[in-house]
Amino acid sequence: MPEIFQTTILGSSAAVPTSLRHTTAQVLQYHNQRFLLDCAEGTQMQMRRFKIPLMKINHIFISHLHGDHFLGLPGLLFTYHLLGREKDIHIYSPPGMDEIIGVQYRLAQLQPSYAIRFHELHQGRQRIYDDKRLFIETIEMDHRIPTFGFLIQEKERDRNILKSSIDRYKIPRDQMPEIKKGKDLITQNGRVIPNEKITRTADQPRSYAFCSDTLYTEQFIDQIRGADLLYHEATFMQDKAGIARQKNHSTTAEAATLAKKAGVNKLLIGHYSARYKELQAFMEEAIKVFPNTILAQEGDVIDIGLSEE
Amino acid sequence: MPEIFQTTILGSSAAVPTSLRHTTAQVLQYHNQRFLLDCAEGTQMQMRRFKIPLMKINHIFISHLHGDHFLGLPGLLFTYHLLGREKDIHIYSPPGMDEIIGVQYRLAQLQPSYAIRFHELHQGRQRIYDDKRLFIETIEMDHRIPTFGFLIQEKERDRNILKSSIDRYKIPRDQMPEIKKGKDLITQNGRVIPNEKITRTADQPRSYAFCSDTLYTEQFIDQIRGADLLYHEATFMQDKAGIARQKNHSTTAEAATLAKKAGVNKLLIGHYSARYKELQAFMEEAIKVFPNTILAQEGDVIDIGLSEE
Repeated sequence: MPEIFQTTILGSSAAVPTSLRHTTAQVLQYHNQRFLLDCAEGTQMQMRRFKIPLMKINHIFISHLHGDHFLGLPGLLFTYHLLGREKDIHIYSPPGMDEIIGVQYRLAQLQPSYAIRFHELHQGRQRIYDDKRLFIETIEMDHRIPTFGFLIQEKERDRNILKSSIDRYKIPRDQMPEIKKGKDLITQNGRVIPNEKITRTADQPRSYAFCSDTLYTEQFIDQIRGADLLYHEATFMQDKAGIARQKNHSTTAEAATLAKKAGVNKLLIGHYSARYKELQAFMEEAIKVFPNTILAQEGDVIDIGLSEE
Repeated sequence: MPEIFQTTILGSSAAVPTSLRHTTAQVLQYHNQRFLLDCAEGTQMQMRRFKIPLMKINHIFISHLHGDHFLGLPGLLFTYHLLGREKDIHIYSPPGMDEIIGVQYRLAQLQPSYAIRFHELHQGRQRIYDDKRLFIETIEMDHRIPTFGFLIQEKERDRNILKSSIDRYKIPRDQMPEIKKGKDLITQNGRVIPNEKITRTADQPRSYAFCSDTLYTEQFIDQIRGADLLYHEATFMQDKAGIARQKNHSTTAEAATLAKKAGVNKLLIGHYSARYKELQAFMEEAIKVFPNTILAQEGDVIDIGLSEE
């Protein structure tokens, strides 16, 4: 059973929230870690609503400094202070977030109970997070102001021990981690069983590409190639392709075209303009170009790369 | 029938929102005007939820610069821009709000489609809004940072024409406004009917005192005396009176004591600490001291001074 790797949709509306849709935020969960991707107004309430433990978040990634992508951040940070948080929080965003937050703390005459570490995102492909199982890179979008997507990529995974071998050789539990790394098994009577006889190749590392907001562009296509899941904004349907261009946003068919050309496994669209009440038509337009498309809707939990199961 | 004068509760939670309660915001309606009193995170969504027309708001009053009282303002202002608002908006708050908002527009590289007029609130009792039927004054609270309540006061009202006189003298509609101001009636055959025979005294001007956040204090008691409705924070129940003092907040019994000493007609309590799940006990504690107490709960619409009906 692979580690949990999934994203929960907290908001799917572009620019202006509607009575049914909040603006952009997602919680990415990998095993027992949780990361916030964008943090629109109401994110802390949405997290409570969907029973996501607030304190599990240590890293927050903000795509750009348009209000519909970060206006929930000040409130979440105040809440952490009021709850007495002690652990550092890391915020990754284009330059300026320290100013936005700083002025508020100064005027509120508050010193947060924990340290806020600001990390500035700059042009180019940066690796901004790295641990033993996962890394996160920026993806450069094409929007009116500096804007970044995020590629969340699992690292090389361990080999899988064949269930039949566990039974046959009664492999002791404490030897399993080393066998998964490629070591041969030495049985109780000294016999050597080569690793390749009792394991199979590691599962393909899984990846999630989060791309919001952007004009249609193929500038990052190599970086997202073959991703298990691509989230790509589709603010407008094809009827408003002109407005999409003018506002530096993409359409359903453009998101689907990129998914197809990049050979991703699944496409998740969102960031719908408030002009549209019904979303079904978004899906219908996208699947004509790329059949494995799903809609981002509040509360949805989407697994990333479960194909190996 | 007097003009509509009522407040709609958009949020009733102190500091931290819960899954059921947003932080502080109220929409005050007087006739066809609407004013925002505080503007916590999620206010624009709450306004949509309770079908309050966003564009009717032209004046926003912010009590102080703690996040739970203003963090919905940037989002509401961005939404106004995205909806193409042209009319000025007036924001009344302690000094600094222009900085908080300004840095966000600079970083988003946005020039709003309308003018934002910032009005700074300073120590003392200031008349900050004045039109032909209503005025609004600041009320000085006692909190950790500069904090203001707001007294919304109807002006002197016109005399009421007795229904019996309208029928008896067939008072022409076009003479009514002057008669309401005190002019005598001259009948078609030249007879003079003294004003006091055909009218009765004007209704008492109504008033609403909005007081959040504050330590218990009687420093503004003369200003709120006899108000039709007093909103007073009651962050804690009596069991946490020590914490209330330490955090510069009030308790149920303190809010009720002030209501009683100021001789107001009705008390509305709110700004409940997230520690409390159930609110019924807040009410029970308050009514022991001041029986005409009600609880602020989201979506409630509370009429101000309907006693003359």
